Amino acid sequence: MKLMKIAVDAMGGDNAPRTVVEGVELARNEYSDLEFNLYGNEKEIRKFLKNESRINIIHTDEKIDMNDEPVRAVRQKKNASMVLAAKAVKEGQADAVFSCGNTGALLTAGLLIVGRIKGISRPGLLSTLPMISKAQGAFNLLDSGANAENKAEHLYQYAILGKYYAQKIRGIENPRIGLLNNGTEEHKGSKTTQEAYQLLKADKELNFVGNVESNAILKDVADVVVADGFTGNAVLKAIEGTASATLHLLKDSIMNSGLKGKLGALLLKSTFGELKNKMNQSQYGGAVLLGVKAPVVKAHGSSDSETVYYTLKQIHKMLEEKMIPDLVAYFEEEAIKKVDNLEE
Amino acid sequence: MKLMKIAVDAMGGDNAPRTVVEGVELARNEYSDLEFNLYGNEKEIRKFLKNESRINIIHTDEKIDMNDEPVRAVRQKKNASMVLAAKAVKEGQADAVFSCGNTGALLTAGLLIVGRIKGISRPGLLSTLPMISKAQGAFNLLDSGANAENKAEHLYQYAILGKYYAQKIRGIENPRIGLLNNGTEEHKGSKTTQEAYQLLKADKELNFVGNVESNAILKDVADVVVADGFTGNAVLKAIEGTASATLHLLKDSIMNSGLKGKLGALLLKSTFGELKNKMNQSQYGGAVLLGVKAPVVKAHGSSDSETVYYTLKQIHKMLEEKMIPDLVAYFEEEAIKKVDNLEE
Repeated sequence: MKLMKIAVDAMGGDNAPRTVVEGVELARNEYSDLEFNLYGNEKEIRKFLKNESRINIIHTDEKIDMNDEPVRAVRQKKNASMVLAAKAVKEGQADAVFSCGNTGALLTAGLLIVGRIKGISRPGLLSTLPMISKAQGAFNLLDSGANAENKAEHLYQYAILGKYYAQKIRGIENPRIGLLNNGTEEHKGSKTTQEAYQLLKADKELNFVGNVESNAILKDVADVVVADGFTGNAVLKAIEGTASATLHLLKDSIMNSGLKGKLGALLLKSTFGELKNKMNQSQYGGAVLLGVKAPVVKAHGSSDSETVYYTLKQIHKMLEEKMIPDLVAYFEEEAIKKVDNLEE
Repeated sequence: MKLMKIAVDAMGGDNAPRTVVEGVELARNEYSDLEFNLYGNEKEIRKFLKNESRINIIHTDEKIDMNDEPVRAVRQKKNASMVLAAKAVKEGQADAVFSCGNTGALLTAGLLIVGRIKGISRPGLLSTLPMISKAQGAFNLLDSGANAENKAEHLYQYAILGKYYAQKIRGIENPRIGLLNNGTEEHKGSKTTQEAYQLLKADKELNFVGNVESNAILKDVADVVVADGFTGNAVLKAIEGTASATLHLLKDSIMNSGLKGKLGALLLKSTFGELKNKMNQSQYGGAVLLGVKAPVVKAHGSSDSETVYYTLKQIHKMLEEKMIPDLVAYFEEEAIKKVDNLEE
């Protein structure tokens, strides 16, 4: 059996390398076809590592901090754990990159080191969000923040990338694709969304369900929501921020409500647990930079070992399903079609 | 005492004219300096009107429906209740327009009939949102959806408009102005936000606090948040949608949790009430189209009479504080400064 290898930035995140090492061990125990390269401070890593089977440590003293300016950090810190992990993929020594570190730096490393798939203009960040409604499940939002500006053509490519992800990783046969817009009618939106609407509508291979608004996406209107990176990022943070703020407010309010309130909270413990579970995103794994030549996946800086495990599980699925090779083939074919069309 | 007159679209909204008429009567009883013109079906209005004092009914059979295409509806339905209300302001018969009807149509009527203030390029819609955090109070977001595209210069004007609103209506002496962006650092964002940042920073009259992200705005980082209309609209709907979905989910979960859960909910009744109150926006009034020659204010289609009352109270404050004449004077002065600068 050929092992698949994940390059892990062991030093990224608030609780690195502990939670990273613990999560890696959980995934290694679960998947016998996975092997790991851990980049980071060997001594620190060894503090937490229980069993070295299928785990290699590549020592480096350098790391990228959360506050580093992304492009400069990736260019200048040539031996940072994150940079070495990305280089391993570029040089064929690993199949995917994982980090809980500086998001901007990981996006930069993905673009500059791992590199774009031929035919993709602007790789986008895919996030998975729970539907905060009766509906079970989740939806994918992309671009959720890799770009500050996007053209209609990029949005169209996000639909393809998101479709592959939803099919292969989430097992949705014919994912519904929605275009994030400021109204549901066809003519609505900016010039960019109006153009994107027409591109999406024209592709008969896509299950395009039209425009979707940012309050409706929580209610099971689409499996994949396509947006420019600026708006996608704003919507992602607004949803996460509001959900978390509401729960905090509820908690504070209960804490200040005296004995009666505390008793009530005790009786509602399972209800609150259910709500919290529903909003918990960790089971869906991390955010994926789609459109580059290998899985480049980011988990929250505050990830616990369970979240690290789920994210490695997500990467395992991407590798197992050969999602990236399929995407590469798709965009190659599209390029050939374009040339054929020109020659006709 | 000179009465101030509000032109009311009595037929707009899900429960019109009942809730509109009831809300108008509440406001009339409260403010002795207010008079109202109610545009709509006289027979329908009279069904709910208890006392005609300072309330005039102007009968019309025509009205704009929620599903009407805004621009076409305003142009073709010349006798619609909303159009007549806007015309009354244009012709000096009333001082402000109020409607719970079709938002797009009201924005169109505001722009085409009431008309822009000289010097304002693109009027923007100002919404007031509660801070979902320990912080008391609220923040203003504009443009929350009047435009699908905006330039940096428009964003700068929104800062001025929002500042006047926060000062005069909310009584905040030196409102903190934040620019909605995808990161807090100065260089972050799209070309538009980068340019807007510099315009805002250069104006020493503004209390510009820099970039703010859509999760932070709930936590008391700014009194006025400036955004392009596309992003502002997406963020507004994401926040409202998530807050409402979370509360619904909690309610559903409690309803399905058996006797224990119901008892717990009973004990937590005041806590839930507090949370709901905190998220209730009706006390802040409606959304205001800022940059036109009179207050043009929209309340939710589902507004109850109390929300209508609060929105009329908000309009009363705008008129009492002479907010619009002050804005007109400001932009006139700015225009003179520009000419002076050119002549120098």
